[in-house]
Amino acid sequence: MKSFLSLNDVENLPALVKDALEIKKNPHVYKDLGRNKSMCLIFLNPSLRTRLSSQKAAFNLGLQTAVLDVGSQGWQLEFADGVKMDSDKAEHIREAAAVIGSYFDVVAIRAFAKLENREEDYSEQVMESFKKFCPAPVINMESGTGHPLQALADLITIEEHKTVEKPKVVLTWAPHLKALPQAVANSFSRWMQAADFDLTITHPKGYELVDEAVGNATVEYDQQKAFEGADFIYAKNWSSYSQYGQVLSKDPNWMVMAEKMKRTNNARFMHCLPVRRNVIVEDAVIDSNNSLVIPEATNRIYSMQVVLKHILEELKSSH
Amino acid sequence: MKSFLSLNDVENLPALVKDALEIKKNPHVYKDLGRNKSMCLIFLNPSLRTRLSSQKAAFNLGLQTAVLDVGSQGWQLEFADGVKMDSDKAEHIREAAAVIGSYFDVVAIRAFAKLENREEDYSEQVMESFKKFCPAPVINMESGTGHPLQALADLITIEEHKTVEKPKVVLTWAPHLKALPQAVANSFSRWMQAADFDLTITHPKGYELVDEAVGNATVEYDQQKAFEGADFIYAKNWSSYSQYGQVLSKDPNWMVMAEKMKRTNNARFMHCLPVRRNVIVEDAVIDSNNSLVIPEATNRIYSMQVVLKHILEELKSSH
Amino acid sequence: MKSFLSLNDVENLPALVKDALEIKKNPHVYKDLGRNKSMCLIFLNPSLRTRLSSQKAAFNLGLQTAVLDVGSQGWQLEFADGVKMDSDKAEHIREAAAVIGSYFDVVAIRAFAKLENREEDYSEQVMESFKKFCPAPVINMESGTGHPLQALADLITIEEHKTVEKPKVVLTWAPHLKALPQAVANSFSRWMQAADFDLTITHPKGYELVDEAVGNATVEYDQQKAFEGADFIYAKNWSSYSQYGQVLSKDPNWMVMAEKMKRTNNARFMHCLPVRRNVIVEDAVIDSNNSLVIPEATNRIYSMQVVLKHILEELKSSH
Repeated sequence: MKSFLSLNDVENLPALVKDALEIKKNPHVYKDLGRNKSMCLIFLNPSLRTRLSSQKAAFNLGLQTAVLDVGSQGWQLEFADGVKMDSDKAEHIREAAAVIGSYFDVVAIRAFAKLENREEDYSEQVMESFKKFCPAPVINMESGTGHPLQALADLITIEEHKTVEKPKVVLTWAPHLKALPQAVANSFSRWMQAADFDLTITHPKGYELVDEAVGNATVEYDQQKAFEGADFIYAKNWSSYSQYGQVLSKDPNWMVMAEKMKRTNNARFMHCLPVRRNVIVEDAVIDSNNSLVIPEATNRIYSMQVVLKHILEELKSSH
Repeated sequence: MKSFLSLNDVENLPALVKDALEIKKNPHVYKDLGRNKSMCLIFLNPSLRTRLSSQKAAFNLGLQTAVLDVGSQGWQLEFADGVKMDSDKAEHIREAAAVIGSYFDVVAIRAFAKLENREEDYSEQVMESFKKFCPAPVINMESGTGHPLQALADLITIEEHKTVEKPKVVLTWAPHLKALPQAVANSFSRWMQAADFDLTITHPKGYELVDEAVGNATVEYDQQKAFEGADFIYAKNWSSYSQYGQVLSKDPNWMVMAEKMKRTNNARFMHCLPVRRNVIVEDAVIDSNNSLVIPEATNRIYSMQVVLKHILEELKSSH
Repeated sequence: MKSFLSLNDVENLPALVKDALEIKKNPHVYKDLGRNKSMCLIFLNPSLRTRLSSQKAAFNLGLQTAVLDVGSQGWQLEFADGVKMDSDKAEHIREAAAVIGSYFDVVAIRAFAKLENREEDYSEQVMESFKKFCPAPVINMESGTGHPLQALADLITIEEHKTVEKPKVVLTWAPHLKALPQAVANSFSRWMQAADFDLTITHPKGYELVDEAVGNATVEYDQQKAFEGADFIYAKNWSSYSQYGQVLSKDPNWMVMAEKMKRTNNARFMHCLPVRRNVIVEDAVIDSNNSLVIPEATNRIYSMQVVLKHILEELKSSH
């Protein structure tokens, strides 16, 4: 693997998941891979799970890490070419990416959608610019349109808990106070379909995801109907794609409740966290034995670790 | 040792101090204990000594560390159960503690008293919730009511410098501009008594510590009298417990001055730092040969290291 | 090397540069030097290259690092002696430096000029106080008057790319929106002269550097004339020393442009980064094959690493 920006960088998805599950059994086996190597974690936005699970994955691989919190230090990047840089943007991505990529063997970046301009967010300017100007492999720790490390962790979790070959997986929109990016939902939808699961997406009208994310999934506007026979319920809020970044509904009836779970095939409940209890999901569901939110978060270690392993192996073989 | 929230977690205090002094002589002997293990340091409040000495202790034990500064990233936790999370608190302690404890072998937390609500601070909500929901051992890096790593470092320092078996130790309140927590004073009082030292606490009326902290210590409102025959003078400001969080006095006569030190038995001067010179203590005292403030701060490495050693040994023996 | 505050701490400059170039060829050879040792990186100001290259240099030497961002945690230091500390400064440099120096084997500090008071900035209060009160070796990561790690990286870069024994090096002032310190320009001027290069400094009137920095360099107010026959053009903005901290000119004619580069001896272009494109330098110059800005930034690893190597060797030999 050369870089990991999205599902497109995965050659063999079943093999990747299998490898992650192997690593989980014995996480320190590949500790020599990271020897004399180092990774920079760049956060343009806050992070808890991604920050900590990425460092843990690096520890497991013997890989050194340096963390750069960009927001808190007021470091602003210019992405446009040919511009006279007399604004508050002190450095151009061309230099920043080239320099950081000359220091480290791997560069991982988080840059959320700003939800102000759809074209800008969906152009993946930050990720694509880093990929273009950074000589080191780049890892997406959530970008404008996707969160592939989360989707891979979700897939690992479902593989561990599924009881049928092709489970029915339901991605359900749930209400939230603030406008959130579509990144997690986009990636989840793409990865579930790539894994050949039976995916249904349910949300109020106006919350349709971008076509490339919807793909061949079933879209069902009736949440109750969508839940019928489900093996996995994956809850997530996102803001509107069509009316970009808008909160069109806060309807509490879309919360995942124990009553609704009864319609499922004893489904497991999933969410990427952090989750607002009794807004996104009822306590009775997230505290039930069917909840997978903690194992799912734990698998963030192994999704990062398997990606790092494949990137380090590629680096090794290319030298 | 399973966790280290307070003195209550110490089985054999003299043995712990002895072990710390042994470690100090040869700090890298136990480097294998931390192999393939990692610790998360969570700071809800600023930290210099605790942050750096904890990392140093971990280095000495071969333990990897990840640091999470919560305040600067606006991460707010919900502690109440059954609540509809539609405020600014984005994550529940149940998930946060469970996830972080699934990533790391040890979790250390700093969460100061807020000094707004005595019941809340003295309920030790943050520490107790972490202990409850975090599967990994938890270390208190200063909580609402105590700072046991500081008290252990203080005890190590006194053991190194005492000239009699049972020294007279005086904890004296000293003035300060702002309202400070009682944590350091509470723990110091408890640990000195557990070490069976002769403890006198002196402060203006209204600054009485909570009964559990005072224990059997002598309380003396006349500072001059308290200093008589003292072997160790430990200065610290704290806000009122009875009129919770209030600053009842800024009386400069309570500053520790060279003139007052003459009444002591050539006492050593101690303070946990940071210290405001010529407010808490006169330059002439802190700059004298009798000052132990730097060796005391250095011992913060060994108080953390001995606690980590005992926790890692427990982890090893339980696997 | 005992500490590294400025050029004055370098005994043999050609040997230092030669050693850096050797290290660059094989960066992990001295990994045992850092074993069981650790460094604290203290940032009173933002940092990207210095932060990351210093950590990378430490990784290469097997040296553990702890990073302390002072600004973001509101930690304010008192430097004056005898003062009653009842302001917002919570800790005296005497304690802070002594404690940090008791925890770590090496302490590196960044403390920019504040550009408010020339005497204060040029007294190097922060660096000199740390050197005085910190028992561990101190490294300057940019101070009030100098940035020697940058100058050493610049020198390494010129050594790698020069085609004549004594190249003509031109330090040219270039326009900028904000008032910037003189630190980089001061150190560059001193180090280029110490390396016995032919140095010309060009800038608008009023931007003369402090005499000690100018030394025997040629000062030429006509930029075009200065560029004639140059082998290296080093662009940098700085604020006025005589009218301290003032921006006297934003004249865009001082920008480094392709047209001007034609007057040089096919000169290489250098800048310490971050650089404002089309303000300091035209895209056509920084994007040309003659631009050295990325290799120069990469050499920041090796300037730090060679300094650390010499400091660690000194520590080893003195124990």
